Amino acid sequence: MGVENLFKNFVCTEQLDGTLSNIETVIQETGARLEQALERWTEVLGADYAVVDSASLAAAETATFATTQSVSAILRPANCRQVQDCLRVANQFRIAVYPISTGKNRGYGSRVPVAQSSVLLDLGRMNQIVDFSEEMAYVTVEPGVTQGQLHEFLQARGSRLWLDATGAGPDCSLIGNVMERGFGHTPYGDHFAHVCGFEVILPSGEIARTGFARFPNAQAAPVYKWGVGPTLDGLFSQSNLGIVTRMTVWLMPAPPYFQAFFFQCDETNQLAPLIEALRPLRLSGTLRSTVHIANDYKVLSSLQQYPWEETGGSVPLREDTMLELRRRLKFGAWSASGGLYGTRRQVAEARRLMRQALKGKVVRLQFLDDRMLRLASRFAKPYQLLTGWDLRRTLELVRPVFGLLKGVPTEHPLASCYWRKKTPPPSQMDPDRDGCGLLWCAPVAPMEGEHAARMTQIANTILLEYGFEPAISLTLITERSLCCVVSISYDRSQTGEDERAMACYKHLLRTLTERGYYSYRLGIQAMSEADSHDGYAGLLRTIKNAVDPNGILAPGRYQAM
Amino acid sequence: MGVENLFKNFVCTEQLDGTLSNIETVIQETGARLEQALERWTEVLGADYAVVDSASLAAAETATFATTQSVSAILRPANCRQVQDCLRVANQFRIAVYPISTGKNRGYGSRVPVAQSSVLLDLGRMNQIVDFSEEMAYVTVEPGVTQGQLHEFLQARGSRLWLDATGAGPDCSLIGNVMERGFGHTPYGDHFAHVCGFEVILPSGEIARTGFARFPNAQAAPVYKWGVGPTLDGLFSQSNLGIVTRMTVWLMPAPPYFQAFFFQCDETNQLAPLIEALRPLRLSGTLRSTVHIANDYKVLSSLQQYPWEETGGSVPLREDTMLELRRRLKFGAWSASGGLYGTRRQVAEARRLMRQALKGKVVRLQFLDDRMLRLASRFAKPYQLLTGWDLRRTLELVRPVFGLLKGVPTEHPLASCYWRKKTPPPSQMDPDRDGCGLLWCAPVAPMEGEHAARMTQIANTILLEYGFEPAISLTLITERSLCCVVSISYDRSQTGEDERAMACYKHLLRTLTERGYYSYRLGIQAMSEADSHDGYAGLLRTIKNAVDPNGILAPGRYQAM
Repeated sequence: MGVENLFKNFVCTEQLDGTLSNIETVIQETGARLEQALERWTEVLGADYAVVDSASLAAAETATFATTQSVSAILRPANCRQVQDCLRVANQFRIAVYPISTGKNRGYGSRVPVAQSSVLLDLGRMNQIVDFSEEMAYVTVEPGVTQGQLHEFLQARGSRLWLDATGAGPDCSLIGNVMERGFGHTPYGDHFAHVCGFEVILPSGEIARTGFARFPNAQAAPVYKWGVGPTLDGLFSQSNLGIVTRMTVWLMPAPPYFQAFFFQCDETNQLAPLIEALRPLRLSGTLRSTVHIANDYKVLSSLQQYPWEETGGSVPLREDTMLELRRRLKFGAWSASGGLYGTRRQVAEARRLMRQALKGKVVRLQFLDDRMLRLASRFAKPYQLLTGWDLRRTLELVRPVFGLLKGVPTEHPLASCYWRKKTPPPSQMDPDRDGCGLLWCAPVAPMEGEHAARMTQIANTILLEYGFEPAISLTLITERSLCCVVSISYDRSQTGEDERAMACYKHLLRTLTERGYYSYRLGIQAMSEADSHDGYAGLLRTIKNAVDPNGILAPGRYQAM
Repeated sequence: MGVENLFKNFVCTEQLDGTLSNIETVIQETGARLEQALERWTEVLGADYAVVDSASLAAAETATFATTQSVSAILRPANCRQVQDCLRVANQFRIAVYPISTGKNRGYGSRVPVAQSSVLLDLGRMNQIVDFSEEMAYVTVEPGVTQGQLHEFLQARGSRLWLDATGAGPDCSLIGNVMERGFGHTPYGDHFAHVCGFEVILPSGEIARTGFARFPNAQAAPVYKWGVGPTLDGLFSQSNLGIVTRMTVWLMPAPPYFQAFFFQCDETNQLAPLIEALRPLRLSGTLRSTVHIANDYKVLSSLQQYPWEETGGSVPLREDTMLELRRRLKFGAWSASGGLYGTRRQVAEARRLMRQALKGKVVRLQFLDDRMLRLASRFAKPYQLLTGWDLRRTLELVRPVFGLLKGVPTEHPLASCYWRKKTPPPSQMDPDRDGCGLLWCAPVAPMEGEHAARMTQIANTILLEYGFEPAISLTLITERSLCCVVSISYDRSQTGEDERAMACYKHLLRTLTERGYYSYRLGIQAMSEADSHDGYAGLLRTIKNAVDPNGILAPGRYQAM
């Protein structure tokens, strides 16, 4: 990434003739502009919140894979007004700003901006829970509000409401995840379907509100998504058209009874019939949670780090070694989890239907409620004698998943970022800082067995070919679709691994899209994949040019530059 | 509406100084442009499909309330290509076009355009069901595909899938209803939440596709709503930014067992506690259908026409007379219906929970399945002896509602448009043609008793004050919100009624919005209500100007002109 690229991205909208002497002039000129802008930003925010120290900038430039984008400054506004002022300064001096909520976009680029030499707009200080209704089951939050914070807020109030948490840890922003259209584990797992009433700061600094929230005193603003007139929520998700500074998130009333279920398949080729068996349950509403199905590599990486000793240090972990580990540690080719929510009778009927549908297709189908989990912890040994199920071993794995199915955020899955590391994860995990390599690829397909089988086969073949373990999860994200998340996990401190992982990712992404499996979400290194070279892309460019004529807001985010 | 208005809307984007001599010149000039455009449109479509005969135009200019907009021509394209060509001609000659699917937007303006002197773009000939999947439960349709057509299509195939039908009749377009964000009766009742993959023709004539449908060969295009990058579906609903010519509509797998429920409240003030009792059932997912609750006036208008004889010809039907009729015809102040879907045990448990929640709050709670309905029809008399429930009287009312809860379209509710007429509805009903007066006002509120009570009180007071019967339904449209639909029904052939009804509507709308109850949908006479004078409105104007610089597409639709 040479000076030309640096330069091209920095000045956003200007046309240049590209001669070297010109470039030098413009670099000086843009440097001067940045300096002036920083002066103004410092006036707006105070010196403490316009960060330029090199350690902070270096940290912000670091993701879980190789990046080249530099961060010129980090702005930390305290409120909506300051965000507006920051954007006005950005327009005045034509400097690109890249907003983050808490920046835990791990596997997709963390805090690193898409465009070169952007200024980071860190919204983490805006962390108020500004509205809450127990009866109507919603909360209105700012971008800095995290999953953990909301969970504690609800606990402290003795609330009967559950949030839907992702596996990305308690310190993840709710809004940040919704903006990337992430998903969780409960019936509210499709996050973007369970929010409304955005407050958006447009690139101009103007404020727009979506749904009924744009009208004064609108009673239905926090409960009805569409409003009247065009519905613009979608325009601001996975986009660079505005900064969402407030959002209502719907919460799920805790059901009178909850049971988690777990089951496994011993053979890889049992995936397709399993998906076929689950689809009618999901389509009929019997299964309301976003069922998660993990392959053996995914399970192993959540149980332990890479088995360096068993393999004598060689990578990747081949399928035959994996088979041995599966036998020894007693888990299947596929391990699934989900939740049943309702009255005891509703849950009992769902359980009966699940048993019926999965008969002969899975093994070790287990149902677990709070009481059983408590008992199991206390009497794991006698329980094993009675049921033959070694609870102690699985409890460690089960407990965080059980929690997620009830909306309890957990740091547990974060440890798997340290899979290929040769030292154990530290007590304060930070995969960006610790050189954990992680690239996520997340294609979506219809909830049909053949698609699930084909996508996972593609991932298996390609990852092993490049020397990585294909850790895969499949999530039945809606009634009709499933999302396959492939992790490329590696150790960034190993020479050549960054390049190899990125080559692997690109090969995987290309192969999947060629077969028609497009990703629901993209990392900063792959944003050009969002370009469809059609009327939609043209329309989006037209809108972007009209709304952000100076191109200052997150240039390149989900759009070709 | 004088020549100035005619003119102002016709020329869309031109600036004028407004002197009378200028106006005359411009009228001549626009007339010449229209003539030239019509020539070109006729070349594109053939003479049969560029309609200008005065009878057709007059019919298209007629809604269920007074309108002044004239229609200059009706274009009837056969395919997407012709729609594109029509728009290009519209741009070339700067003529406003107003697209309709089948134009059954009754109570909101039917086929009548928002702006003066528009050309109607009637998409009714594009009526192909272009894709269908029984397994994945969806259908992809063009704008001319009606509810009735899809129902027949599914019946003919012996499909196990149900559509969600509105009460607006079998000849309503599916896409037309989705574009207005209408709602139906089943768990798929919130129509806009159950569609994806739009094919849109932009004002320029370019085609854009939404969600994954914009990528070649995308497997998840018909099953996953959000796609990757900004989600633009919402931009095209209740808008004037594009013409949707194709859409995937999700269908509901028929449950193994279905039961409709019906109940009543005898007192008007029982509404608030009823809503409070229903909310937890809806929030928990026990009640998955969009429960409909109708007041006495609404029920009466679906049973018969105005009781001219009993009232000696006087209007409105006062509450004391209504009370008498309720006693005589045995229906409550509120009558509700909904469906329970699932296995027999799931339905049984939902039934138990409903009985529990509604105990002491409602009367005549009845559950009805297919078998009972058949039996009831055959043995109504002995059934009445056994149960005390006079089935014959209610069967007439029950049957269409029962059907709607299973996605069977019905013409039955259309008859209520003839409420104030002094002759019975004809066998081929056409409320526009037959001078039926109907204005719908549809405010949304949180699903809370106090809001339901307040909205209905406002409607009661205002409608009776203006001499109309307050026919009201409340629909629990989502888990947290309810929509109150108030009908102002009258006889357009009575002198002064058009004006009085419109004055009543405006008073009602103003009072409701002042209290924070904004409408989810607006009629062509009230589009200025969609303007919120804020950043959202400004953003929308910016987008409109960028996407439709000549302002040719449905000017004024859900946007201030």
